[in-house]
Amino acid sequence: MSALTAEGRSKELGIELPQPPQPLGAYVEAVQTGNLLFLSGTLPVEAGKAKYVGRVGAELTVEEGAAATRLAALNSLALAREHLGSLDKVTKVVRLSVALVATPDFQAHPRVADGASELLVSIFGRERISTRAVLGVSSLPLGACVETEIVFEVQR
Amino acid sequence: MSALTAEGRSKELGIELPQPPQPLGAYVEAVQTGNLLFLSGTLPVEAGKAKYVGRVGAELTVEEGAAATRLAALNSLALAREHLGSLDKVTKVVRLSVALVATPDFQAHPRVADGASELLVSIFGRERISTRAVLGVSSLPLGACVETEIVFEVQR
Amino acid sequence: MSALTAEGRSKELGIELPQPPQPLGAYVEAVQTGNLLFLSGTLPVEAGKAKYVGRVGAELTVEEGAAATRLAALNSLALAREHLGSLDKVTKVVRLSVALVATPDFQAHPRVADGASELLVSIFGRERISTRAVLGVSSLPLGACVETEIVFEVQR
Repeated sequence: MSALTAEGRSKELGIELPQPPQPLGAYVEAVQTGNLLFLSGTLPVEAGKAKYVGRVGAELTVEEGAAATRLAALNSLALAREHLGSLDKVTKVVRLSVALVATPDFQAHPRVADGASELLVSIFGRERISTRAVLGVSSLPLGACVETEIVFEVQR
Repeated sequence: MSALTAEGRSKELGIELPQPPQPLGAYVEAVQTGNLLFLSGTLPVEAGKAKYVGRVGAELTVEEGAAATRLAALNSLALAREHLGSLDKVTKVVRLSVALVATPDFQAHPRVADGASELLVSIFGRERISTRAVLGVSSLPLGACVETEIVFEVQR
Repeated sequence: MSALTAEGRSKELGIELPQPPQPLGAYVEAVQTGNLLFLSGTLPVEAGKAKYVGRVGAELTVEEGAAATRLAALNSLALAREHLGSLDKVTKVVRLSVALVATPDFQAHPRVADGASELLVSIFGRERISTRAVLGVSSLPLGACVETEIVFEVQR
């Protein structure tokens, strides 16, 4: 990792963020308290439609699950940039939580979750690497296979 | 929304909070750290008994799920008032998380979760609207169909 | 509870913490922001292998589930001590979340979660007792039956 900032790294890696997702109900996508930025859960959505529908381990492979998780995290980053003006205001990625819909005997949750974690590390660097909690759930909004939720520490 | 406070709005809307729920084990219902108030997960419980038992999309309709989610959030608000003395000390609703027991093919999570979100907006106003994360889980304590968990920013 | 510190109580109770778990992917086990310490989700793992595999209420009894939850929490405490140097730096246990894999009709989540909560109370005392949220999920990494996640308030 060079001295590049998060925005610089994103550009260098050719990472383009999608349009920030819109709320699906009576909530907002980001709330800042002090220097903590809480984001709403985000789905693997493109242009308002869920892109990866089904269960990882059945209708979807581990690789597809990881791609879905990356897409959900890109949506989170789009929200963070929209709220902050620039990803360079992120000082730490405090917590990433990943909920994925998987078959009951599925065990490779970490590989699926790395779709988001590796994206975050490539942008924010290992010096801002997050904690993580991963769950296998039974259903998600829109039938999506995964939801990510991120808490950032940001410049005030 | 007028210049009414949260307590004033609650009164005007005729919203009565239940008796605050009691812990089901070796924990407490609220912990404040700095100006963040963390609440324990709350269930759609009345007088210590789960009121909405079953899966949304099977034994329970979306409307019943939303009513259950509203009841769980009323229990959260009862805890907040008990801890703070008054809901007027809430400066932001930082995060609402909703876990609901639903059928595997259920997709209308946002409508169910709005049972809590719309209650919060009616009391705290759109200027204090929260982030939200919603999951479909496979079971909850007491067989309840939903659990809400809220983090508030409060006056110190 | 006497005037013993958390480390003193642990010693007196003969509680030995395991080797801190290693990340299963591109994340770290602890991130501190201000005086909040966020830990990654931890599993009932010993020496890198999941010890309690299966569903509580089917392959595992409530007692085994509680023992697994206690082991997961011991792993969390090992992370906290590693990060802080000493558990005596913990000023509050803000939030404990417990996700357990259970049968659909399971209702005794609180008894399982008490495996972690009672451990925390025995070490940090009732004056530092946590909030709690408990979910029944459908699968977890490594096939483990439970995952705990803890947020501490700590001395800066």
